[in-house]
Amino acid sequence: MDNRPIGVFDSGLGGLTAVRELRLLLPNESIIYFGDTARVPYGTRSRETLLRYVKQDIGFLRTFDLKTVLVACGTASTTVLESVRGDYDLPIFGVVEPSAAAAVAASATGRIGLIGTPATVRSGAFERRVRQLNPETQVFSVPCPLLVPLVENGRTSPDDPVLQLVLEEYLAPLQAQNIDVLILGCTHYPLLSEAIARQMGPAVRLIDSGAAIAQYTAATLRQNGALAAGTDAGSLRCFVSDQPHDFARLASLFLRCDTEPEVSRVDIEQY
Amino acid sequence: MDNRPIGVFDSGLGGLTAVRELRLLLPNESIIYFGDTARVPYGTRSRETLLRYVKQDIGFLRTFDLKTVLVACGTASTTVLESVRGDYDLPIFGVVEPSAAAAVAASATGRIGLIGTPATVRSGAFERRVRQLNPETQVFSVPCPLLVPLVENGRTSPDDPVLQLVLEEYLAPLQAQNIDVLILGCTHYPLLSEAIARQMGPAVRLIDSGAAIAQYTAATLRQNGALAAGTDAGSLRCFVSDQPHDFARLASLFLRCDTEPEVSRVDIEQY
Repeated sequence: MDNRPIGVFDSGLGGLTAVRELRLLLPNESIIYFGDTARVPYGTRSRETLLRYVKQDIGFLRTFDLKTVLVACGTASTTVLESVRGDYDLPIFGVVEPSAAAAVAASATGRIGLIGTPATVRSGAFERRVRQLNPETQVFSVPCPLLVPLVENGRTSPDDPVLQLVLEEYLAPLQAQNIDVLILGCTHYPLLSEAIARQMGPAVRLIDSGAAIAQYTAATLRQNGALAAGTDAGSLRCFVSDQPHDFARLASLFLRCDTEPEVSRVDIEQY
Repeated sequence: MDNRPIGVFDSGLGGLTAVRELRLLLPNESIIYFGDTARVPYGTRSRETLLRYVKQDIGFLRTFDLKTVLVACGTASTTVLESVRGDYDLPIFGVVEPSAAAAVAASATGRIGLIGTPATVRSGAFERRVRQLNPETQVFSVPCPLLVPLVENGRTSPDDPVLQLVLEEYLAPLQAQNIDVLILGCTHYPLLSEAIARQMGPAVRLIDSGAAIAQYTAATLRQNGALAAGTDAGSLRCFVSDQPHDFARLASLFLRCDTEPEVSRVDIEQY
């Protein structure tokens, strides 16, 4: 048993897709969330800049006594996680392993699509892991730089005409490849899953990287005997690098909380 | 005569619209440019965060011996410039005064449109200045959060279908108000002026806030006897907070230089 909280971070709102699933699976775990809203988006930054940001993000989370850290950000998981993991003495999970495993398990045809930020697609991290798990698999990748700005501006409705047009452009090459599984390689994208599913049709299974990392975390903690003891509902504390107000409102909507979570501002450049 | 360089900054590429005009008007002025590419966009950040960023931006530029600083960023000019101007002992120009004056001079009907980032529109700074100059004028404002991400991702062609659809949505309410002048209240937007002009039609005069601040600077330096002496071509040195390579390529295209400008990375959080 381990009652210490789980730390989770993302560039902005996206990581809440992991938090939502984590609270469903493990309702009595406490969670510390950090969203780097003063520096979002991550997916168009260079690796060098991402390295600095991710070290600061983990540095801030480490001011709490945590049992594990979830990198609930596709860009951070694919570009810099492997370089920094060894610098810390606690387990750090990223989205690549859980999503790649779920995609390989779900695909009947071995034709898997990936959408992600430009940095994620450039990294090749999902492709490498998928092909390690099953060398017969083919992965078709499309960078989608406009999706995070759309989500962060609240444009997630499947009826939004701009979102529809952007998705048509990004998804057309994947439809042409007859994929049967599509990895949503950025934790913002599950917020668009209804719109994406409508375009891809029912034959394509979507892999939600936020849900996948949460499921992987639940299984790993259970296996290691590191779940929280007792039956009290876990707490959720959120921190953001820009002003907390909008984030609290969007987070409560998204997490379907009755009350807005506690959200505080943190000066992330100090870490 | 004053041979010290002019400092210019913006969140990213947008301020180059001011640099281009400055180099046309005053070819022998030297320019130090800073683009905060590791933290772009500015227009969706809070005032508190913008205050910190702008102080760091000016702090970095002040490491050079400058004769003036141009805030070639609509968001920084409208939200925090008035609060920080008094902290520095050199003249700092923003885009509000020059653009508002140009708009009032150009409007025959007194019906002026403004497009800008959410932070700029929320500030009300352009409206206040336009109505000080001519209280009879009406200003109609639309926040356009997706335009900076589109420009920073290179989607500036008037034939880009996503850009067309986004502009239709943002510009329709302004067309309905029968404006005769439209202030491009963000220095990124002149990169979209062909696309915007196509939608607004020839009866609407566009005010380029980047060009307006450059013209204002040229006139002010001339009036104060502070132009550079001699006839040598001025130099351009660029600094960015993320990696320099893409910026150098885009900047040379945009400024129509034969050679890429010198671009270096700066760790802006240190200032």
